Amino acid sequence: MLKLHNYFRSSTSARLRAALNLKGLDYEYLSYALLKDETKTPEFLAKNPAGLVPVLELEDGTNLVQSLAIIEWLNEVHPEPPLLPADPVGRARVRAISYMVACEVHPLNNLRVLQHVEATLGGDKADWFRHWVGVTFPAIEAMLAGSPDTGTFCHGDTPGMADICLYAQVWNNRRFEVDMAPYPVITRIFEALDALPAFADAAPPKQPDAV
Amino acid sequence: MLKLHNYFRSSTSARLRAALNLKGLDYEYLSYALLKDETKTPEFLAKNPAGLVPVLELEDGTNLVQSLAIIEWLNEVHPEPPLLPADPVGRARVRAISYMVACEVHPLNNLRVLQHVEATLGGDKADWFRHWVGVTFPAIEAMLAGSPDTGTFCHGDTPGMADICLYAQVWNNRRFEVDMAPYPVITRIFEALDALPAFADAAPPKQPDAV
Repeated sequence: MLKLHNYFRSSTSARLRAALNLKGLDYEYLSYALLKDETKTPEFLAKNPAGLVPVLELEDGTNLVQSLAIIEWLNEVHPEPPLLPADPVGRARVRAISYMVACEVHPLNNLRVLQHVEATLGGDKADWFRHWVGVTFPAIEAMLAGSPDTGTFCHGDTPGMADICLYAQVWNNRRFEVDMAPYPVITRIFEALDALPAFADAAPPKQPDAV
Repeated sequence: MLKLHNYFRSSTSARLRAALNLKGLDYEYLSYALLKDETKTPEFLAKNPAGLVPVLELEDGTNLVQSLAIIEWLNEVHPEPPLLPADPVGRARVRAISYMVACEVHPLNNLRVLQHVEATLGGDKADWFRHWVGVTFPAIEAMLAGSPDTGTFCHGDTPGMADICLYAQVWNNRRFEVDMAPYPVITRIFEALDALPAFADAAPPKQPDAV
């Protein structure tokens, strides 16, 4: 069985849980408490030298790292249901929205960055978090609101990679009480996703290690 | 002809220039001075609501955004030479190394973040930049040094997506005088890439808007 090395609150872990659920794949849930540095042990660093969750351990012992690289792998090896549209321009749009979360919002707002901002620069973690959401969420909202490709979900009426990234990020936003009123399309899509078991079952509070 | 809306110093722009060069595709070079907010005009925001370069404008007027989404599109529409290996696990490895740059290093070190760290928190831009390179480059080095898949380049002996990301990031590192001595494999790969015209011609100092 696949082994998912992850943590309930990690939004990159939540992405992967949603992807595995959408693909209908069972996995063993292994939890690493980030605040206790459980991903910094020699055993874990042998799986991922970056000391980050999630890691997907395949049945042959291969360890895959970086959530979106793993999701692309999942989608190549288990093509149904597809997490990317069939046409290249559609795929570029879905990947672009995914990366707007994964390369613009999330990297600035993960645990180690918030800790560094607070400990080294004396910044306020919540202000910092909300600042960077406020830089990129309006652009995501504009891309979704302005395109006929947007449907029930980010791209048409079946959930895919962009939805996975957005869903996990909105859960993160809740922790820092981001005002979602300026983002009605994102909110509508989040609610549609949250009504699907594949997503709801991937949410942080539903995980066995949730505190 | 393809139109590349970009800026010489933007490392995400450099990624795309290298990818276009590797694919042997001609493009029109359009420059936007980031420090003059030239990507914040209504005309540009209509191309990319995020107000970021690069944007690749296709011949039918479609605007593609997010450098790695564009590179995946390029690789799907112009498959030769491939920028990803043929096997799914190899693809996952190349994407993982790419995202270690694109989702861990670069997002913390782009212009708007450095400006915010300095203006709002009173931090030192160069310290901040080097801190985040120092968090993730050791893991990239370990992944490259520890794998038989590493060849002349990040994955075997043909350059691909991970090389594109790494090459552009090392150019960025130079601006902030990052000590590369702890990263001999990355340095060796950078030098091999820099010997290839497709990469060298994409480097910041070679661009028409370089200052």
